[in-house]
Amino acid sequence: MQKLKEIISKIEKLDHSLAEETQKRLDNLTKPQGSLGRLEELAKRAVEITGNVNPPIKNKVIFTMAGDHGIVEEGVSAFPQEVTPQMIYNFIEGGAGINVLAGHVGARVVVVDMGVAAKIQNPKCKRQNFKDKKVNFGTKNMAKAAAMTREEAVKSIENGIEVFEEELVNGIDIAGTGDMGIGNTTASSAIAACFTGKPVEDLTGRGTGISEETFLNKISVIKKALKLNRPNPKDAIDVLSKVGGFEIGGLAGVILSGASHRIPVVIDGFISGASALIAYHLEPKIKDYLIAAHCSVEQGHKIVLDYMGLKPLLDLDLRLGEGTGSALAISLVEAGIKIMTEMATFQDAGVSEKVESRK
Amino acid sequence: MQKLKEIISKIEKLDHSLAEETQKRLDNLTKPQGSLGRLEELAKRAVEITGNVNPPIKNKVIFTMAGDHGIVEEGVSAFPQEVTPQMIYNFIEGGAGINVLAGHVGARVVVVDMGVAAKIQNPKCKRQNFKDKKVNFGTKNMAKAAAMTREEAVKSIENGIEVFEEELVNGIDIAGTGDMGIGNTTASSAIAACFTGKPVEDLTGRGTGISEETFLNKISVIKKALKLNRPNPKDAIDVLSKVGGFEIGGLAGVILSGASHRIPVVIDGFISGASALIAYHLEPKIKDYLIAAHCSVEQGHKIVLDYMGLKPLLDLDLRLGEGTGSALAISLVEAGIKIMTEMATFQDAGVSEKVESRK
Repeated sequence: MQKLKEIISKIEKLDHSLAEETQKRLDNLTKPQGSLGRLEELAKRAVEITGNVNPPIKNKVIFTMAGDHGIVEEGVSAFPQEVTPQMIYNFIEGGAGINVLAGHVGARVVVVDMGVAAKIQNPKCKRQNFKDKKVNFGTKNMAKAAAMTREEAVKSIENGIEVFEEELVNGIDIAGTGDMGIGNTTASSAIAACFTGKPVEDLTGRGTGISEETFLNKISVIKKALKLNRPNPKDAIDVLSKVGGFEIGGLAGVILSGASHRIPVVIDGFISGASALIAYHLEPKIKDYLIAAHCSVEQGHKIVLDYMGLKPLLDLDLRLGEGTGSALAISLVEAGIKIMTEMATFQDAGVSEKVESRK
Repeated sequence: MQKLKEIISKIEKLDHSLAEETQKRLDNLTKPQGSLGRLEELAKRAVEITGNVNPPIKNKVIFTMAGDHGIVEEGVSAFPQEVTPQMIYNFIEGGAGINVLAGHVGARVVVVDMGVAAKIQNPKCKRQNFKDKKVNFGTKNMAKAAAMTREEAVKSIENGIEVFEEELVNGIDIAGTGDMGIGNTTASSAIAACFTGKPVEDLTGRGTGISEETFLNKISVIKKALKLNRPNPKDAIDVLSKVGGFEIGGLAGVILSGASHRIPVVIDGFISGASALIAYHLEPKIKDYLIAAHCSVEQGHKIVLDYMGLKPLLDLDLRLGEGTGSALAISLVEAGIKIMTEMATFQDAGVSEKVESRK
């Protein structure tokens, strides 16, 4: 708990002292004022978060964290649990969606076993892109008991913090979150219902693509888990322990670490949203360090983002997770920063300014 | 007219023969089916357009075409006309928004003087990234006469075709459109009103950022131009000649050429939308070769895209033009193609498939 408390205590309110200067700088570039819309907003946010007028954007890191969920016993997913470790190997080998998209935008992927229900053993795991931070072999079935102990919940967040801090030595200018875990939309819906107070029906989606029958079962299982465990929305650790997941806790740790180090964190889809909710309820100031990558097909995602006042950048009908949306959004943040740092000013380029006011 | 007729005659209906095979291929990649949403749609579209199961995406080219508009005499813009040539030099020097964003996504920019009201003379214009295809020194004031002659309208499209075909020798795997021209949102609103039949008020926006007074004047000027010229929506050349612009015609030529060579064309904002309307009314089959980059702040843009049945990829409050939206969207097309060509299959990666149906 000490590590978590320390990180939280280091998170500062977003610093707006450079806002005016940055706005002037953007307005003096050869384009009508504000005409690059959200790219300009991203540039400003990057300056405010980092406190650097030329925010670096070389080291782009996506943390793809995996964990298993005991709730899959209840038949809530379209894929078998064995897919979680199989996908870990796929991430390490570079064959998954996140590998391709991270490569496309020049980001590196850090794959983390936060709590997969299998021993990950492969000589290739000695590769630098994999970290073993397993808290336990999957959560318990939350329809029958708490998903994890309170100690495990804290440990999952602290392991996430550890991953981030270890990776800092390799450089992190911007971080992206990503998840893998069969059953983790179920846990995320439960977390979202608990914090937002919205009906489970509004927060539950089709995950990897389940049938109507499985979908109705998923809703009733989530309700059962909430009724049994009664997570306390005023205690984020309680929520995480009763209906959460190890990768969800780990990503909350990544978010808290990013904010404490003044590094922008791009959050991916619905599961990352649930992680952000945990972090937000531990320390609401983290919100200003987050950039919402996209609006997922998972219907609960919009509710989660609205709850924290976050406006997604992309809406491309994505529902894969892994950090795929984060990768695409990181490229937009980079575009915004490049606009600010690379474009010519009216003076440099000898371009006349707006004259309407002269008339 | 011969060149234009030839190009149009070469445009084929989109070929769906590879659709089923491509869908199977996408569904066999290590991700839930359809979970990469519009990226998968872009990959499929690229296959259908090019007829290549591994569509090349190395040569990304943005055509930024510039022209001036006599209508600026009526006080419809916030910036003076001299900005058009000044921005041409800025494009050539690499200091504009489009240079930065094209660089970000690995695209090259081809700058074209289609009808700027000044002689572009600069030793640097011998650089390969600039083409002089001037049809005339700006259009006439369409509130007093036709913007250009019918011959000039045809020439502007044919010059656009010429630019595209010349550039083909350097390789074009995907093309993007972009515009520059003080006063060109006014012409675009007139074109859109003519083809869609919607009220001028719904199709007119604030351009580079005009006041309420200038905005109301802009609307009345567009109405006056339409009333005076009575462009015939069944004759796209008539519309272009009476209320269009040289860069708008040039970009219509780029679009027609792209379709005829089975090369995807990413269209930028409102002005590119007006160009697409011209091309679409010359040959409706072009629609399937277009990818709408984004939804502009210019309120008429959505109407134009809906009219052609195009759904924009991005919504980032952009209103700069130049091809800036195209650049960002080209990167998404590339992402989609890479997903299809670089991801591992379930078999390759040893990942289990969906089991729900087994139950």
